[in-house]
Amino acid sequence: MGKIFKTIGIIGKYRDNEVIETLHHLVACLQNFKRHIIVETETAQPLKKLKLPIASKNIIGKKCDLLVVVGGDGSLLKGARAALDFNTPVVGINRGTFGFLTDIKPADIDKKINAILEGKYREEKRFMLDATITQDNQVKKLPPALNEVVISAIDTAQMINFEIFVDNVFVYSQLSDGVIAATPTGSTAYALSAGGPILHPKLDAVVLIPKFPHTLSSRPIVLDANQTIKLILSLNLRTDVSITCDGKTVATLKSGDTITIKKTRKNVKLIHPLDYNYYETLRNKLGWGRKLAKNK
Amino acid sequence: MGKIFKTIGIIGKYRDNEVIETLHHLVACLQNFKRHIIVETETAQPLKKLKLPIASKNIIGKKCDLLVVVGGDGSLLKGARAALDFNTPVVGINRGTFGFLTDIKPADIDKKINAILEGKYREEKRFMLDATITQDNQVKKLPPALNEVVISAIDTAQMINFEIFVDNVFVYSQLSDGVIAATPTGSTAYALSAGGPILHPKLDAVVLIPKFPHTLSSRPIVLDANQTIKLILSLNLRTDVSITCDGKTVATLKSGDTITIKKTRKNVKLIHPLDYNYYETLRNKLGWGRKLAKNK
Amino acid sequence: MGKIFKTIGIIGKYRDNEVIETLHHLVACLQNFKRHIIVETETAQPLKKLKLPIASKNIIGKKCDLLVVVGGDGSLLKGARAALDFNTPVVGINRGTFGFLTDIKPADIDKKINAILEGKYREEKRFMLDATITQDNQVKKLPPALNEVVISAIDTAQMINFEIFVDNVFVYSQLSDGVIAATPTGSTAYALSAGGPILHPKLDAVVLIPKFPHTLSSRPIVLDANQTIKLILSLNLRTDVSITCDGKTVATLKSGDTITIKKTRKNVKLIHPLDYNYYETLRNKLGWGRKLAKNK
Amino acid sequence: MGKIFKTIGIIGKYRDNEVIETLHHLVACLQNFKRHIIVETETAQPLKKLKLPIASKNIIGKKCDLLVVVGGDGSLLKGARAALDFNTPVVGINRGTFGFLTDIKPADIDKKINAILEGKYREEKRFMLDATITQDNQVKKLPPALNEVVISAIDTAQMINFEIFVDNVFVYSQLSDGVIAATPTGSTAYALSAGGPILHPKLDAVVLIPKFPHTLSSRPIVLDANQTIKLILSLNLRTDVSITCDGKTVATLKSGDTITIKKTRKNVKLIHPLDYNYYETLRNKLGWGRKLAKNK
Repeated sequence: MGKIFKTIGIIGKYRDNEVIETLHHLVACLQNFKRHIIVETETAQPLKKLKLPIASKNIIGKKCDLLVVVGGDGSLLKGARAALDFNTPVVGINRGTFGFLTDIKPADIDKKINAILEGKYREEKRFMLDATITQDNQVKKLPPALNEVVISAIDTAQMINFEIFVDNVFVYSQLSDGVIAATPTGSTAYALSAGGPILHPKLDAVVLIPKFPHTLSSRPIVLDANQTIKLILSLNLRTDVSITCDGKTVATLKSGDTITIKKTRKNVKLIHPLDYNYYETLRNKLGWGRKLAKNK
Repeated sequence: MGKIFKTIGIIGKYRDNEVIETLHHLVACLQNFKRHIIVETETAQPLKKLKLPIASKNIIGKKCDLLVVVGGDGSLLKGARAALDFNTPVVGINRGTFGFLTDIKPADIDKKINAILEGKYREEKRFMLDATITQDNQVKKLPPALNEVVISAIDTAQMINFEIFVDNVFVYSQLSDGVIAATPTGSTAYALSAGGPILHPKLDAVVLIPKFPHTLSSRPIVLDANQTIKLILSLNLRTDVSITCDGKTVATLKSGDTITIKKTRKNVKLIHPLDYNYYETLRNKLGWGRKLAKNK
Repeated sequence: MGKIFKTIGIIGKYRDNEVIETLHHLVACLQNFKRHIIVETETAQPLKKLKLPIASKNIIGKKCDLLVVVGGDGSLLKGARAALDFNTPVVGINRGTFGFLTDIKPADIDKKINAILEGKYREEKRFMLDATITQDNQVKKLPPALNEVVISAIDTAQMINFEIFVDNVFVYSQLSDGVIAATPTGSTAYALSAGGPILHPKLDAVVLIPKFPHTLSSRPIVLDANQTIKLILSLNLRTDVSITCDGKTVATLKSGDTITIKKTRKNVKLIHPLDYNYYETLRNKLGWGRKLAKNK
Repeated sequence: MGKIFKTIGIIGKYRDNEVIETLHHLVACLQNFKRHIIVETETAQPLKKLKLPIASKNIIGKKCDLLVVVGGDGSLLKGARAALDFNTPVVGINRGTFGFLTDIKPADIDKKINAILEGKYREEKRFMLDATITQDNQVKKLPPALNEVVISAIDTAQMINFEIFVDNVFVYSQLSDGVIAATPTGSTAYALSAGGPILHPKLDAVVLIPKFPHTLSSRPIVLDANQTIKLILSLNLRTDVSITCDGKTVATLKSGDTITIKKTRKNVKLIHPLDYNYYETLRNKLGWGRKLAKNK
């Protein structure tokens, strides 16, 4: 029996009509259960008439016991950033294309949100990645990433050359279009398109995936997430380099810059319905085989 | 017995000291054989003292019977563009990292260039790709590509959506980082890093390779090079799109733009020494297995 | 307007109840059109009551103007072998799991078979592969393969070592679980699971795909189908080697044996309905993207 | 400072002349250090004249403080099986093709074995896999595997269908040539040829890699090594199935049989020289890039 959530924060893709419909449904459901509701400032725009309390995405995590995200996995990534520092759990209602993270369907809101409010849920911890860049002797911290950090050549006609170190030990240098560092959570997102393996969410591991490496024997390598990954860009790059966290470009790098990637000290707590099944999600999203008819 | 080349054009990476050394060696070798020499304008800069006739890269192909390129495969790609319209054959002396195309080593210049000047050589035809873009009802022709044409999202955090047509028949739509159209010549260059197959140079074929496709069952597809490939960008892109020909960015595309790719009507003629062996180059560059000791 | 077929041969997976149902439907349809029907001997077993003329699979191709296959792609491969020597066209009705080759659905028999009988169809030529083995100075010809020839280690715990020659020129030696030589037709079958590219059916090409090669830079290579591929097994194998043609094991090889693979001189003629679309089949079977909603 | 080893067991590929030469060198080195030596029975054959004590591979691990293996990684796998139950550490001298596990070169025996005997070494733990099969209601335990357990169709012309369960939860069914379960140690062996990722040796993880899966969206999945993997063969297989542990075929399976795979309770202790560097081995074996010249 889980903790009973009293104050519920709501975050959504507020420009999408289907999301707005679901937001109304969700508010009605929560009010029915007499929960206190706080809506993220932007999300609140299409809900003005309801006159609900609002809070910015920077503090909504602090003010609430639970964050409910309505949208696709992209919206949940935003929710995760809002929740991380405050240990607030997050649950997702799927109104997007994907849905590895947002596992409640809009049609199931009444049944599944009700159950969660009654304390019937499973909590799962997922770590994020903290990246920092060192540029011109300045160190800059980037926003935490639940899925992946991607380093890429900005000029699509040029490869980049860089060195990778793990816990300060040199691993390899590589000439490629870039490299992806993905968490188990991110291993079913962009990293999977790039040829990476699936990492079970229980694993405390990070996978490094080269993007179109010049050396054909390059392969994804799965590291212990407690190791520190450092990438030093060559001094002779012919292109600038972008760094993206969960699909947002957060910085531009140059020859000689350094990127350091560690797992976050805190974890995001994902809330799932009791009947949540990770493998079923995999099978559905990836078209994998179901139980064999005659094997039962 | 091949045609005897009388006027020889020289193109090189003129800012590289090793190339300059080899250029001097080459000039001496050609003068020894009493050939008429014309040097490409930029390449001529470090050779000023020799007072050789010069010509721009646009007309050097027209004025010469043979173009000799000194540098890496990148320099040979430039030589190919200079040669294509005039049916001038091209031979490469390798002073770069790669060398699928530049198959004469600097140490072999005397022996192998001499043999070529005596008509002892093999000629091989390689087609190029002509790409045109249609943007705001304007059609623009891009420079021909010997290796590949690459369409890529410019914002590294965004995938692009597009439709592919072959001879005006719809093939597929794809959400990905972009797509590569490579010739047999290019199949051992960037396309190989991207997971494409090797296409034998004799094949009249083009391979389309998705870059990190969202749909995991996407695969490279090899098409008849006489078919016309058309790519139409989605109307709803969240990023601009770059198009590169042989590693040079040649245009920026937007939502709704069209790219058409056909093989060139003319071929580039590559000149090889008589002992040239395509498979030996593959084995050397890719680290493939040699003859088995006990199998002889 | 195609040729009018008068004598129709029928081949099917006679032990499958759904196939039998479709065979009855097909016979009725052909009788309605007053065509002469000959049934392959085994296929005729469940149709005994109809008292139709029968012929063995070795001569049915000779006696008929058209062969209709009912089953999966496996059945069509059998039909192709029966048809090859006699230039008899083949059409497939799909009653199996796959269906790259059998493109008529049972529900469409009346409409589509009728159209074909009226001469409204498209004919497409597909070449097959002729493999011969040389063992103890004996040369043995294997049955032609429409999809692929596979050479594999029989002991699953041992890799095999072999040399590949193309037109008698050495290409590479390889240590691996084996190698697949696939036609364009076969490029969407087993070869695709093995990481090979899709080859457009118009291509006159064969792809060689290594099975789990020890050298990580090994890649599929697409060759001109008019070249002769020769594979010589190492003298020091620790396992016997099987050779399969279209999924049937046809011979066992030993250290030092040679396999030669060429395209067949004759082609199989596949008959398709007029609305047949190769790319639509690809999209359906591989789950590729359809037309973009807003791109129209 | 490590434990001082007093009784040293020796295991080697005794039919190989180079190994025999190295065995003599090793014995001289150990005698020089006044260590008690026990030679594995088969390994002792070419060393008869030395009249050293011998022990079978089943008990040599019990009788010794350290096992020294001379040969390739295959020999070390044998040494690991001998050592596992008795917690005896193992070190490898490389006389084979590979060498991810046998990291001392024969030329370095004096220097590196001496250092190890003086207690200057690093100890690393690697887990193995215990597989059991359930067949006709009989449960049979298979020998532990340091690298991998492979389930494969025996008839190379047939795919097999099976279900995978993790901790008794259904994961997927798959139609393929088989599946590989590899440890971090095995991730750089056969699993790497099969397209698996590299797993850092510190990871407590197992990777499942499909062999040529019919479903193109199948991918390697990395699981927590503390989970129990169960594979149930379909009731309708058209071929028998082999199971191999570290490259030895250990059982034949049939339709409906079950294989269970868990990590071993004990670990193998690998002894490395103090200057051992896992990443350097990777770079050497896989041809990965070294430090960038101008990045220092």
